[in-house]
Amino acid sequence: MNLHDIVKARNRIEGHVRETPILTSSLLNQWLGHEIFFKAENFQKIGAFKARGACNTVAWLKENGKVPSRIVANSSGNHAQAVAYAAHSFGIPVTIFMPEYSSKVKIQATKSYGAEVVLSSTRDITDQKVQEAAAEKGVYWIPPFNHEQVICGQGTAVYESLTHLDNIDAVFAPCGGGGLLSGSLIATRGLSPKTKVIGVEPLNANDAAESLRKGSIQRLSAPPDTLADGAMTMTVGDITFEYLKQLDDFYEIEEKYIIYWTQWLTHLLKCRIEPTCAMSMEAIKRWLGTMESKQRVLMVISGGNMDQATTQKIWERDWLEVLPIHFE
Amino acid sequence: MNLHDIVKARNRIEGHVRETPILTSSLLNQWLGHEIFFKAENFQKIGAFKARGACNTVAWLKENGKVPSRIVANSSGNHAQAVAYAAHSFGIPVTIFMPEYSSKVKIQATKSYGAEVVLSSTRDITDQKVQEAAAEKGVYWIPPFNHEQVICGQGTAVYESLTHLDNIDAVFAPCGGGGLLSGSLIATRGLSPKTKVIGVEPLNANDAAESLRKGSIQRLSAPPDTLADGAMTMTVGDITFEYLKQLDDFYEIEEKYIIYWTQWLTHLLKCRIEPTCAMSMEAIKRWLGTMESKQRVLMVISGGNMDQATTQKIWERDWLEVLPIHFE
Repeated sequence: MNLHDIVKARNRIEGHVRETPILTSSLLNQWLGHEIFFKAENFQKIGAFKARGACNTVAWLKENGKVPSRIVANSSGNHAQAVAYAAHSFGIPVTIFMPEYSSKVKIQATKSYGAEVVLSSTRDITDQKVQEAAAEKGVYWIPPFNHEQVICGQGTAVYESLTHLDNIDAVFAPCGGGGLLSGSLIATRGLSPKTKVIGVEPLNANDAAESLRKGSIQRLSAPPDTLADGAMTMTVGDITFEYLKQLDDFYEIEEKYIIYWTQWLTHLLKCRIEPTCAMSMEAIKRWLGTMESKQRVLMVISGGNMDQATTQKIWERDWLEVLPIHFE
Repeated sequence: MNLHDIVKARNRIEGHVRETPILTSSLLNQWLGHEIFFKAENFQKIGAFKARGACNTVAWLKENGKVPSRIVANSSGNHAQAVAYAAHSFGIPVTIFMPEYSSKVKIQATKSYGAEVVLSSTRDITDQKVQEAAAEKGVYWIPPFNHEQVICGQGTAVYESLTHLDNIDAVFAPCGGGGLLSGSLIATRGLSPKTKVIGVEPLNANDAAESLRKGSIQRLSAPPDTLADGAMTMTVGDITFEYLKQLDDFYEIEEKYIIYWTQWLTHLLKCRIEPTCAMSMEAIKRWLGTMESKQRVLMVISGGNMDQATTQKIWERDWLEVLPIHFE
């Protein structure tokens, strides 16, 4: 895949997804002495970048005369809403298989996009049911990240950003299954080859970092304990891993810093920001600490969907009392 | 004051404040069966509409050849930051008097806009000190709401909105000291005379509602217990009260609903939203319940500044489990 595939994706999804704004905080820039640009995918349809990959996949099926009779997906999170939205947006029936423990608000949102929702008691049963459904004739299963058209769709967020911003020194994005990072890498290498592309993962869910260290795909041994729920994926995919290997750097972030930056970016940007992306800010700060000249950095705010329990945990103690210039 | 004063204010503050976006939630509109537009002043400079009134007052002084040697103000909240920002933006020295109990993050922000900050142990001492400072030659004191140029500045938020949106049936804004509502009323009567202008106040801080009922300005007997900290003002002003009397309706909202809508608007709009403005959504819902046809409503999101303690209280229980269509 290359830049042309991203451009094609961008054209395909036009009118179905939003061109989201790029935010800045003059206070943060003043404190850090660098320029940080935030691509605000929390304002994307369904509240996360995932709408891009899902819409591109459905549009690509349509473009190639392969419109399925039904689309299916399995997810407890943003991918469920993204596929529901994309299928509905292109007028194709859709069934989403979700575990019962998914938050009510996400189940409701998925239904409100016109999807049939099938709840199962465990994740394993959910995964089994989607496989059965996908085996039926005319049904197409959209996976969350390990799919070329999903990757190209996700890459359009950074593509849009880099067509508006010149001389970006580095792009930071979080790593769950690696779809966003893979697409971001393809877009950046094509548009701005000198720009570094850097991945970020919670230390408590560092299967991608482990995989990169060992040179082969590693799987988490148990569901990880992290507030960055968009990065809880147990393993990356074979397609995404090939792109992750080409990253310029990779950071693993402790929970304390994830919480700190979720509070601060919420406060500075006045946005609802998922912990999954806020952790990138700590990676940016560490990376900037190694630089001798003023840098221009792009960070992807991957989404803004967060339930009450996570919000409560994020705001348990007051990190706003500790300014970024004093925080170690 | 009339529409011309608002237009003059709008021209004066151009380049010093942002033209903020107007947000919508298709899910919320679908649930309510009406169209709600949100003017997002949380994305305004300093995170609240207050930047408008402060900038207009400073620009008006300059326009009239009355540039002070120093600007002063007293506040523990958004007005402190607004005056600091406005004075700095026009290159005028500024001192802000704040009580020591103000949140560190607000004190820091006020300083970062270039203001000298003088902390005092109580609000009374703070108020006394600003009076002393204002008595000095060449010093100008910008009050938080009871001032014509402050009111005209605040009115530019609704003015901007109504130049972009046709056929708005009603405008809702929160009532603290009445500056935002007074300016909103002037702008709306001038641009769209048939549009209703409706005020909203926490039931626990209902001095304005009491004043309107009794026909004379009433003062709260003690600092009120409400999460809507922007509406904790003890009394409205003599200038603003004359405008408040012209409002088409006025709602008093219980804390439970303030919390509910802060959670839901944060979730739906992916924004940091102060409880002070979120309460307007309950008033809108109640007002819409009395309407027989589809309405188009404008709500001013007055700001997005909230400390950790308030955030924690807002997210104590899970209101996202109760959809707006089921909430009474």
